Amino acid sequence: MQISFEKTAALLQAANDIVITSHVSPDGDALGSSLALAHHLLGQGKKVQLLLDDDLPLNFSFLPGFELFERPVEGIIREADLLVVLDTNLDRTGQVAAAVQAVQLNMDHHISNDLSAQYLYLDPSRAATGELIFEFLTFVQAEITTDMAICLYTAIATDCGFFRYSNTTPFTMQAGAALLSHGVKPNLISEALEIKPLATVQGIAAAMNTLQLFCDGKAAIVCVSKEILATALSTEGLVDFVRIIEGVDIAIVLKYVDDTTSRVSMRSKYTDVSRIAMDFGGGGHARAAGCTLHVSIDEAISCIIPAIKKAMGAVENA
Amino acid sequence: MQISFEKTAALLQAANDIVITSHVSPDGDALGSSLALAHHLLGQGKKVQLLLDDDLPLNFSFLPGFELFERPVEGIIREADLLVVLDTNLDRTGQVAAAVQAVQLNMDHHISNDLSAQYLYLDPSRAATGELIFEFLTFVQAEITTDMAICLYTAIATDCGFFRYSNTTPFTMQAGAALLSHGVKPNLISEALEIKPLATVQGIAAAMNTLQLFCDGKAAIVCVSKEILATALSTEGLVDFVRIIEGVDIAIVLKYVDDTTSRVSMRSKYTDVSRIAMDFGGGGHARAAGCTLHVSIDEAISCIIPAIKKAMGAVENA
Repeated sequence: MQISFEKTAALLQAANDIVITSHVSPDGDALGSSLALAHHLLGQGKKVQLLLDDDLPLNFSFLPGFELFERPVEGIIREADLLVVLDTNLDRTGQVAAAVQAVQLNMDHHISNDLSAQYLYLDPSRAATGELIFEFLTFVQAEITTDMAICLYTAIATDCGFFRYSNTTPFTMQAGAALLSHGVKPNLISEALEIKPLATVQGIAAAMNTLQLFCDGKAAIVCVSKEILATALSTEGLVDFVRIIEGVDIAIVLKYVDDTTSRVSMRSKYTDVSRIAMDFGGGGHARAAGCTLHVSIDEAISCIIPAIKKAMGAVENA
Repeated sequence: MQISFEKTAALLQAANDIVITSHVSPDGDALGSSLALAHHLLGQGKKVQLLLDDDLPLNFSFLPGFELFERPVEGIIREADLLVVLDTNLDRTGQVAAAVQAVQLNMDHHISNDLSAQYLYLDPSRAATGELIFEFLTFVQAEITTDMAICLYTAIATDCGFFRYSNTTPFTMQAGAALLSHGVKPNLISEALEIKPLATVQGIAAAMNTLQLFCDGKAAIVCVSKEILATALSTEGLVDFVRIIEGVDIAIVLKYVDDTTSRVSMRSKYTDVSRIAMDFGGGGHARAAGCTLHVSIDEAISCIIPAIKKAMGAVENA
């Protein structure tokens, strides 16, 4: 059942023992929204537990209260007054939704929300769940502490690429302005989030040496081999160095998974890459999509380059 | 003489033939502020000329009116009612200040402004001259068109690192919010500005292969050799890939100038690098400084690494 801020406030008001959770593979919005709401409810004297069924990305350890996140204990059912699920459906919370017996309140901004929650506050016009929480806290006239502001700013800024993505609205930036006035230092947050391990930076540089352009420079591919991955562990952010090349429409990162499995990630400016991904059994959005090929990385190159040439040719001839 | 917005408005109102200029090595704030004010004055039916004594960075060619910038013609003195100098002192306008005979109005946000202009509107609390112009246009109740909003947003966003630098204030973000409501698409602007030529991306990747860490990983240096520079032309942005490495305080880019000249650029999180630069006859700020060494690039490495070790040791022992 979709509900208003009034009903959301009433549900939170009535509950004394509250569990907050979010999606696995947590991002800044998942972590920041959860912590901001937790700080607010703790300030109201309520018992609050933060459960998250995944490892936490350590770049976010600057978030006030980061140490409060716990993983659910297998086989133990936790009774509570209210389970608040933020930034996702209940079915993407790992073991948490099943491990907590409580009234369910879901707050989300994803248009893809499955509407299955007992109580749902959904606003797909918002760039981040952090925006919803900020709006809700303003609605209930909550005092926004600096700790809460840091969490909310991080939630919002990470979901809209620090106010650069197309989902950024005037409200997004007004929320940012208000949070700065509550003591947020944007430089400290952006610096903490851009830090990468040395091995990752070296891995990205090594992968960039494999750069190949084709389709008259409109497509660019880099390969993350078994060797690169062995030392780099992650090459997160690599695609950003490819997609900024002048004239490139489609940026492709091809990554070793095992000797007979390769992962293709694509980003584009104009061409619908989800259609290319779907041809290989993958999916995604028009501007960001991916697929898994059950061949070696060398064979994967031989598959993906002709497919992209075909897709780009189709666009040119359209 | 420092003046108010009232007096600024009166000066602009009284002038019919107006020349607008800004600093050499123009950045987003110089170009965006100049164009936004030009659009406003052209809308008032005034004659406006945009003079800029330098090449223009083509990443900014999306700015509405970009084609209006002209270079001053040597030896020709231009008479006008008003010369508006934005985002700098008069002495950083190349030949423009000397080539235009007019009443001088200077609008700037740099605390380092030399206060030499005939009329000066200065507000060092603002993150960008674009913020001043936005504030001024709001003061005179000007209609802000989408073209003007794009110019002002670009001016502001580039001077505060897309709202990530420490100079970003609540007002900065409120201005951003207002400009988005006038039709700015932040994703299109940020995408246009992050584009780099293929050769530059390849040059950055090649330079990253020279990465060396020292001082227990607290300092990191990369070298841009004659060979890298020959094909890359520019490696602008290289330092950003060095300073994000986990644990790195000082990021150093050492660049070939000629066989007996090398340029050192330093960025830091904690250590005052301006003092290191000053020891070699250079200068800058505590967190960003540089110097030129009159030795080969190999000899420069041998000079700069011990100097940085000494500076960091001094901090550790302090």
